[in-house]
Amino acid sequence: MNKNASFPPVIILVKPQLGVNIGMAARAMLNCGLDQLRLVSPRDGWPNDQALAASAGAEQVIRDAKIFTNPGEACADLQKVYATTARPRDMTKRVVTPRQAATEIRACQNQNIKTGVLFGREAKGLNNDDIALSDTIINVPLNADYPSLNLAQAVFAVAYEWLMDEDDTAPSQLVMPKSTRPANKQELSGLFEHLERELDDCGFLRVQEKRPVMVRNLRNMLGRADLTEQEVRTLRGVIKGLCRGR
Amino acid sequence: MNKNASFPPVIILVKPQLGVNIGMAARAMLNCGLDQLRLVSPRDGWPNDQALAASAGAEQVIRDAKIFTNPGEACADLQKVYATTARPRDMTKRVVTPRQAATEIRACQNQNIKTGVLFGREAKGLNNDDIALSDTIINVPLNADYPSLNLAQAVFAVAYEWLMDEDDTAPSQLVMPKSTRPANKQELSGLFEHLERELDDCGFLRVQEKRPVMVRNLRNMLGRADLTEQEVRTLRGVIKGLCRGR
Repeated sequence: MNKNASFPPVIILVKPQLGVNIGMAARAMLNCGLDQLRLVSPRDGWPNDQALAASAGAEQVIRDAKIFTNPGEACADLQKVYATTARPRDMTKRVVTPRQAATEIRACQNQNIKTGVLFGREAKGLNNDDIALSDTIINVPLNADYPSLNLAQAVFAVAYEWLMDEDDTAPSQLVMPKSTRPANKQELSGLFEHLERELDDCGFLRVQEKRPVMVRNLRNMLGRADLTEQEVRTLRGVIKGLCRGR
Repeated sequence: MNKNASFPPVIILVKPQLGVNIGMAARAMLNCGLDQLRLVSPRDGWPNDQALAASAGAEQVIRDAKIFTNPGEACADLQKVYATTARPRDMTKRVVTPRQAATEIRACQNQNIKTGVLFGREAKGLNNDDIALSDTIINVPLNADYPSLNLAQAVFAVAYEWLMDEDDTAPSQLVMPKSTRPANKQELSGLFEHLERELDDCGFLRVQEKRPVMVRNLRNMLGRADLTEQEVRTLRGVIKGLCRGR
């Protein structure tokens, strides 16, 4: 999946309540290429059928989940621990965005430093002792009027940023069937000239002083469509069709 | 919320099946500051109690949702439409990442261009006619072995990137109680010298040739902690306490 995913971050859910949220969190993890899940005292015990059902396709993450009785135990082998929570009011702590955390976690991976991210139980979140266990807080900077994230969404935000940190997908690209390719300028000229010839013939371009602007506008319009070679041929067929019998 | 949120993007769910997913999508939207939801032929009719229950805190988004019978109607007043789906195999279409889409949508907002994002029904996604209705495809570049996102997660990915595009949260900052502030260098020197004096007294620094390195290491160690003024005072109390009665 990733060239330096030597120790990809471990996701640790502290006292999760609903099995369905554990399953959804597992899905969010695997969507982003993470598969090491640790659970601290899940309320409804373990294994949990609802967690398995909700994990739809990410069952292996659920089956491989490791269970611990307290957060300290779950973090024992980790060297750098993040806690996802609101900005603390009564503690001095470094707070980072998920994007910054992703960059730091990748840097840790490059140095073979084992990282983990703690998520609190639904609604109540992490308590201050859990937070003190962590090195750094991750706070997702959301709508201040409604910042409370569903557990699986919080896991997704962190895992997604981790994945994006090394993603090299082109931000924008024209995707087309393998059988075709972008038209070249000669093919486009052929189309434009074909169209203009027929428009001259039918009288659409008869006002000579308007002709240059009209032609330029038509070429700009069709040019913006990023036509493929196949589409140029289709449009020439369309022109031919429309002129038939004239 | 946002200085140029003149026409924030509309979220359009096409034939959503489960009320709980509609509710979770509404939550994800409001978490990111979006509140205009449109639904095309929700399977279980409308209103939907499960959607309302799952929206927990985002009920207004559900109550304000507009219902349409087909995607064309739902997009009629929009000028730029994105479709979230896998990369198309048999169409020529521009494909962008959620991050790129966010930048483009913000640019549209600056020009008062109304945008919307289409999401397909669970499992099946959008069909080719829905996709043809859109200008551009948004594809979330996920784990290629498990790319299928839950509906609410897909909405979150798009809405989150939209929010982040104009977010100016400091990527990393030290957050501390209002009653304190970062210690200054004089306060830190006072702490270091206090510690070193006591360590000289108790004999810990007695090997004179090792003293400079030891002192430098201790200063580095404590320096990395980014101590606050309050914490410096606490540590000086700790030193005093440890030395008591010696």
